Amino acid sequence: MRDPATTSELPTPALVLDLPAFSANVATMSEALPGERLRPHVKAFKSTALAQRLADAGHERFCCATVKEMEGMAAAGLGADLLLANEVLDHTRLGRLVEAGARVTVAVDSDETVDSAAAGGVREVLIDVDVGLPRCGCEPDDAGRLADRARGLGLEVRGVMGYEGHLMMVAEPDAKAAQVGKAMELLLAAHEAVGGDIVSAGGTGTYAANTWATEIQAGSYCLMDTDYGSLGHPFVQAIRVVSTIVSISAKGWAIADAGLKAFGMDHGNPTWPDGDVFFCSDEHTTLLDPDATLAVGDRVSLIPAHVDPTVARHEQYWVVDGDDRVVDVWPIDLRHW
Amino acid sequence: MRDPATTSELPTPALVLDLPAFSANVATMSEALPGERLRPHVKAFKSTALAQRLADAGHERFCCATVKEMEGMAAAGLGADLLLANEVLDHTRLGRLVEAGARVTVAVDSDETVDSAAAGGVREVLIDVDVGLPRCGCEPDDAGRLADRARGLGLEVRGVMGYEGHLMMVAEPDAKAAQVGKAMELLLAAHEAVGGDIVSAGGTGTYAANTWATEIQAGSYCLMDTDYGSLGHPFVQAIRVVSTIVSISAKGWAIADAGLKAFGMDHGNPTWPDGDVFFCSDEHTTLLDPDATLAVGDRVSLIPAHVDPTVARHEQYWVVDGDDRVVDVWPIDLRHW
Repeated sequence: MRDPATTSELPTPALVLDLPAFSANVATMSEALPGERLRPHVKAFKSTALAQRLADAGHERFCCATVKEMEGMAAAGLGADLLLANEVLDHTRLGRLVEAGARVTVAVDSDETVDSAAAGGVREVLIDVDVGLPRCGCEPDDAGRLADRARGLGLEVRGVMGYEGHLMMVAEPDAKAAQVGKAMELLLAAHEAVGGDIVSAGGTGTYAANTWATEIQAGSYCLMDTDYGSLGHPFVQAIRVVSTIVSISAKGWAIADAGLKAFGMDHGNPTWPDGDVFFCSDEHTTLLDPDATLAVGDRVSLIPAHVDPTVARHEQYWVVDGDDRVVDVWPIDLRHW
Repeated sequence: MRDPATTSELPTPALVLDLPAFSANVATMSEALPGERLRPHVKAFKSTALAQRLADAGHERFCCATVKEMEGMAAAGLGADLLLANEVLDHTRLGRLVEAGARVTVAVDSDETVDSAAAGGVREVLIDVDVGLPRCGCEPDDAGRLADRARGLGLEVRGVMGYEGHLMMVAEPDAKAAQVGKAMELLLAAHEAVGGDIVSAGGTGTYAANTWATEIQAGSYCLMDTDYGSLGHPFVQAIRVVSTIVSISAKGWAIADAGLKAFGMDHGNPTWPDGDVFFCSDEHTTLLDPDATLAVGDRVSLIPAHVDPTVARHEQYWVVDGDDRVVDVWPIDLRHW
């Protein structure tokens, strides 16, 4: 069977990446945060092929959320400077990456994670600091003590990280800058006590507002979703799920063959740009189509509400050019754990 | 590395299947709906290893939601009578299964799907009838015409199907029976016009209430989730996601390493039986633990709200006995499309 030539020939549901839109997003971000000012977050796109394009754009330091992502990036030759921006309790898999020649830094926020990193063969850490998001991170005034403990165990402490995830969706720019500033005050105070070159923070929602961090951990910007799209960023929507209309009802709805198993649903239903979504079930999305604009066999594009958990449901990106021709396939090879 | 001996040694997050609970669910259903009275729905569990246990319990007819599920079941030797309970527009992959010796029946609800089935080499169909769920299915009074069209194209019409999915969560038994009865009136009228031996309908939520169908399409019953668990069925919770506490905050929360990428979130957050869930992010669930009962490194079990889209996020079931010992691993080999 020859490869599909256009999206109308793809087996559906198909996760489609618009290469011109993706390239525009990468260029926009690389201009705002060139080189090491951006540490792209692999969790958003989970693909070494995609990561290679970001490395080609000058970003050779990456951060990851899982050990699997770290392993895959190192195996793909993208292990020049990998940060696991997350706590783990078993560092032996990371230690093996260090042995194999990757540069591995891991977030730590407790005695247990510091001790585990040292025992597992990791050599470099960042102290993860709670800057207001109810998730990981030590109390800011405990950061210096943890850094001392780490150094006492022979670990190199490269600095601090703190994720102001609770501020990503603040819409008004002045309010966002002020709130991010307060969060970063906590992180900078911790950094004072910890030392090291790195203050790692931020994400797509605060990449412009966060002028305090030495590097920004953003990943969603290159693909986008309707949630981030509501914020008025300069990034454009670059992925969609192409589906086939498999059934039409005279009652005014049309059924697309992409459902709960093709989308991350934590931020709600996907969006159909040409009308309203009624609801999703396992393998279907019911679209409201009172004027019967759709026919059985038509293709429709649905836009995910949240990019990260959507991408993790698919095996590959079908990469298309501006004329909807499939020009490449990028495996989503960093899924699972 | 030797295989993990207990769930405390598994890499996390880990989808764990409790074999005694699963076996009890299978036995309960097989007593209520023996043999061909049940057509287990593969979409709920997406594993040929699990399906084999249901075949061993006497259910040798299965239904699927995707072509990939059909292909995997046939390849695993479970193709004695496979129903694709869903509409597709390209039947060539199904036609190849027929050629290879599988018995394949596919749902059709329009001229286009009937014609495609005939053109693609499928030989047997069910007429899919709209019984009230806003999804697939023809108008009941169009079913006879579609059956005639199918027979005119040389297809064998085995009967009708209609999924009363909108009634799964009706809690009160008498109300449920009455509403299911009304939905099945529509299906039986269509069956009158269509003919054939099969009236296929139902699911875990209506397996007892639907006394009109010749076979029930249920799958969730063998694993269960908190949504179905709220209905007072005789089925017990048989899967959970085991996760590790990777961080503790003095502010009263604990962070488990299973998040949006480990759960289907369309029915809401997973449940932590020992306390409250605050929120989920990509790779974390923040648990409220004001009394600091948890420590870094502890294992906790989280119960999914919706089984089908949760299972589809994992690579395997870790099968455990009543003493939490890992006794088997069942690949979730029917994911994707």
